Amino acid sequence: MKNFSLKESRITDGFWASRQTLNAEHTIPAVYKRFKETGRFDVLKCKKQDPPTHYGSDSDVAKWLEAAAYLLSRKEDKQIRAWYDEAVEDICKNQREDGYFNSYYQTYEPNEIFTKRGDHELYCAGHLFEAAVAGKEYLNDDRLLRFSEKYVDYIYERFVEKQDTGFVTPGHEEIELALYRLYNLTKVEKYKTLANHFLNVRGHYDQCNEPYNHSILDSQNHLPIREQTEAVGHAVRAMYLYIAMADMAKLTGDEELRKATEILFDDVTQKKMYITGGIGSSHHGERFTVPYDLENYTSYAETCASIAFAFFCDRMQQLTGEAKYGHVFERLLYNGILSGVSLDGEHFFYVNPLEMQNERKSFFAGHQVPFVHSPLSKRIKMFDCACCPPNIVRFIEQLPTYIWYADEEKNELILSQYISSSLSNDFVDASITSSFPQSGKICVKVDSKGKKITLKLRIPQWCDKKFENAKDGYLVYEGVFNGEEICVDFEMKVRLAYANGNVWQNSGRTAVTYGPLVFCAESTDNDFALAKVAISDAQNAVLEKTNDEYALRLQLPAYLVKNTKALYTFESPEYEECSLQMVPYFAWANREDGDMRVWFPYRK
Amino acid sequence: MKNFSLKESRITDGFWASRQTLNAEHTIPAVYKRFKETGRFDVLKCKKQDPPTHYGSDSDVAKWLEAAAYLLSRKEDKQIRAWYDEAVEDICKNQREDGYFNSYYQTYEPNEIFTKRGDHELYCAGHLFEAAVAGKEYLNDDRLLRFSEKYVDYIYERFVEKQDTGFVTPGHEEIELALYRLYNLTKVEKYKTLANHFLNVRGHYDQCNEPYNHSILDSQNHLPIREQTEAVGHAVRAMYLYIAMADMAKLTGDEELRKATEILFDDVTQKKMYITGGIGSSHHGERFTVPYDLENYTSYAETCASIAFAFFCDRMQQLTGEAKYGHVFERLLYNGILSGVSLDGEHFFYVNPLEMQNERKSFFAGHQVPFVHSPLSKRIKMFDCACCPPNIVRFIEQLPTYIWYADEEKNELILSQYISSSLSNDFVDASITSSFPQSGKICVKVDSKGKKITLKLRIPQWCDKKFENAKDGYLVYEGVFNGEEICVDFEMKVRLAYANGNVWQNSGRTAVTYGPLVFCAESTDNDFALAKVAISDAQNAVLEKTNDEYALRLQLPAYLVKNTKALYTFESPEYEECSLQMVPYFAWANREDGDMRVWFPYRK
Repeated sequence: MKNFSLKESRITDGFWASRQTLNAEHTIPAVYKRFKETGRFDVLKCKKQDPPTHYGSDSDVAKWLEAAAYLLSRKEDKQIRAWYDEAVEDICKNQREDGYFNSYYQTYEPNEIFTKRGDHELYCAGHLFEAAVAGKEYLNDDRLLRFSEKYVDYIYERFVEKQDTGFVTPGHEEIELALYRLYNLTKVEKYKTLANHFLNVRGHYDQCNEPYNHSILDSQNHLPIREQTEAVGHAVRAMYLYIAMADMAKLTGDEELRKATEILFDDVTQKKMYITGGIGSSHHGERFTVPYDLENYTSYAETCASIAFAFFCDRMQQLTGEAKYGHVFERLLYNGILSGVSLDGEHFFYVNPLEMQNERKSFFAGHQVPFVHSPLSKRIKMFDCACCPPNIVRFIEQLPTYIWYADEEKNELILSQYISSSLSNDFVDASITSSFPQSGKICVKVDSKGKKITLKLRIPQWCDKKFENAKDGYLVYEGVFNGEEICVDFEMKVRLAYANGNVWQNSGRTAVTYGPLVFCAESTDNDFALAKVAISDAQNAVLEKTNDEYALRLQLPAYLVKNTKALYTFESPEYEECSLQMVPYFAWANREDGDMRVWFPYRK
Repeated sequence: MKNFSLKESRITDGFWASRQTLNAEHTIPAVYKRFKETGRFDVLKCKKQDPPTHYGSDSDVAKWLEAAAYLLSRKEDKQIRAWYDEAVEDICKNQREDGYFNSYYQTYEPNEIFTKRGDHELYCAGHLFEAAVAGKEYLNDDRLLRFSEKYVDYIYERFVEKQDTGFVTPGHEEIELALYRLYNLTKVEKYKTLANHFLNVRGHYDQCNEPYNHSILDSQNHLPIREQTEAVGHAVRAMYLYIAMADMAKLTGDEELRKATEILFDDVTQKKMYITGGIGSSHHGERFTVPYDLENYTSYAETCASIAFAFFCDRMQQLTGEAKYGHVFERLLYNGILSGVSLDGEHFFYVNPLEMQNERKSFFAGHQVPFVHSPLSKRIKMFDCACCPPNIVRFIEQLPTYIWYADEEKNELILSQYISSSLSNDFVDASITSSFPQSGKICVKVDSKGKKITLKLRIPQWCDKKFENAKDGYLVYEGVFNGEEICVDFEMKVRLAYANGNVWQNSGRTAVTYGPLVFCAESTDNDFALAKVAISDAQNAVLEKTNDEYALRLQLPAYLVKNTKALYTFESPEYEECSLQMVPYFAWANREDGDMRVWFPYRK
């Protein structure tokens, strides 16, 4: 299946239109300014700065450029255009004669190029290639595309022809999927060949030259890609690898490879994913650990990992057309991704904890303990490792491409995400009116331009309504559509969710959800200790739709353990009724510091 | 109140007699051998070794010597006597002319003496003084006592008279309580004066000379001792300080100081103690964190901290005579202390986790992640920092001194710990027959030698039986006792315990207890995942008394979450009945590696 470009699919109004406006007016400029202040744009001129920039900083800029290209295609903005143009010019001007470009290496370590597997040169290259695709596709700007062509030639020469580099496989995957994007845009075989090379060589070397302490498990180099069955190592790297594997499977029809991606996806979603969609539970190595190890307070769940996981969902939906990939995309979209940016659009989480014990956090932060992981209790403007903010801005701009999927040969059209938007191309014209996430009501109009098509609307995973025309997770409609309105109410309800019994941390606990949203309680809304709350059911939950960025608030009748002085007693706890105030998880930590909780004891 | 010496109080049979036999025949020799192998005894000759020993190693030897002195007073053993004598000779022979002794500093850093607050010189000195007290009191060996006299003169000169040292207060408390022990034995004022000095100066310096990164909170130097109201910092150091404060309060009648010790004790027991009695929840700094922060898997609960806490209970019972101190001592004795040594007596835990997620532990251990705290799942023979094993051996030998307390002027006699034993001295003769921890039945015979006394038997905290003669936590008997047998059944029952509602980690959870014992389940006894178990009640628990070191095993009807593939569902978990096999917490990890759990979801 294919998805549609931003030229074809556009968000029109509603919840996500507001978030795109915030992205355009606040987040994209804010990220630019932070990057400008920290020398990430200036270093593109390849002149020394003090302090020096990071070897990965070009990737930050590249993701911002990619976002800017998407944004400028939907909305002209002279300031952003000027920033974009200057950066593109600097990159092209300072590309070496041989094609290489990395502002850090050229400036600080010109003799160490391609010697350090952990140093993200190919990762930066990949992001620049993605920016090149965006610029060419949406702005008809081929400057970065020409840059990429020359750079790929150089990489190909070094890694494939001469094989004279200090390592063989990229330490941080990304270039593989970028090369497939270049190929899909240009159909130049060399891009595909190089991507295939990087993928096929993986796992065939016991040990690459690794000057940093990257274990093979950290970068998914432990097995040939078709033999990988368990998601391991750094979560973002894993996702970028699996995306490239799906891309390759789609391009080549390699069934063994498709099967591997399905197995890896299931391993993540059945054993290693937070209820928010967040992945990579360990702060050490930002990685996957063992099945069902999903601590709440120390959860890592990097924003970039959620975004990368959503990209993987998209590729799997393209590869298979199955509804389950849309389910997980939706989980990520409304929870683990959206929590990465503040409601004012200018502050960011890198780590997205499922619980905030603020006194504990403050204790360790106050003691400046470097090796005890203490999650931030408030989003901040900038990180030294600033991968997440520009990933958010490009993701929000790309969102329209994840709404629809189509197999035009089979005349099949899938609506995966209920986002108020319009679609217009040679195949169909369509529009969606969605009240997500405030309610489950959606209306769709499709004009199939005279031909008979199969229209499939994804039935959200949280929907327990029975439909007559349901099949394999979709509502199926067949016929020639002339713009008739199809309205469905998926009936969002406040529902309690439960984790698999194997999850130590959440055994006997429950989380509150409404449609795609996971809810949480914050101490700023509740004048009792969140540790003391237990939940019995969601039947009398009172949902309040709001006009602010929270979209929804919830009052849930719950139970509160009565105060006791003793630390341990033999009396089973006495409870009193309380009203638990809850907000969507994505909106937590936008007010004063305090506690936050998602999983509560389930008291039947 | 006073307690009684090992000359007066002796364990006769039963559970603790077996543990004393194990201590004598296995643990004391095993600890000696490990210390010999690692150069801790040889370095007493103050000759360089490769690799060098640790600056704290004399304290390890000193605790072993103290244990050996206690042991030799109850049971001659030529081999242990020879080891003891050789070490004492070496220490005395190599004491410097000026009185100083520290094998590490004399050998490796003679020019750095008393310059590094974090380097445990005064801590080592303190332990040597305690060994001196034991040797003099029980073996009439005054060699280490003469050594101590000379050493104290040197310390007094440097820290009080010249004040030319690199720090002012001991970085690791211990010497203060040791000096009070020296004073109590010898009545030499200088010991008390120096102890008082170290205590009174504490908290009056904002910053001592600290070449290591010891924050003032780590060593309880943040406030003058009488103003300290919250247990902070390194748990062992805190306990040793509070013991010395209690000692000083008892010697001086300082009410303000007594009040401080009571407040600190309550802070620990009401907010910062595991159900096993373990304290110091953070591996970072081995310390107290914030109230109610009691993680299970990452719990630290160092064996030494439990032992030190038991010593503190003893001092508080001496100071106040209150039953609550006996309650906590009992909790520590049967759980957090005893878990520190294996059933074969030759393997040790430093960290005593409340939960073992073995797959998670193995993952991080396999990745050799230095800064992620992974508890050991099996006791080991030796640690680089080997403070716990010799602390256990001296504690087990000292146990008879914690059974009885008396105020001879008021003719009051308190029986605090139900350990089969005899007491004989000028005040009374007595004997106890106890079936603890297998049942709550005890019998006591007292001969009060013609005088009228008040006999008080502590009513254990877990006992819910009503007694007519109960007062302030004691059964009170008055009269002249002529050896009549008083038998009481405190009626141990399997009971569920609950943590305070403020404990995030245990909210909605319950632990299984029987009398003083906390029980746990191990995966080696159960063919299902412990993560899936929930407990409803303890009414149909089947208790099996065993003749092996476990003493008891328990089968508890419980519930098991049915298997589901999905990681998250909206169906509340379905349960099936199961029989949960449990063992006393102290006995866990004596078989193959696996999971272990104390706190289970409570399913009413």
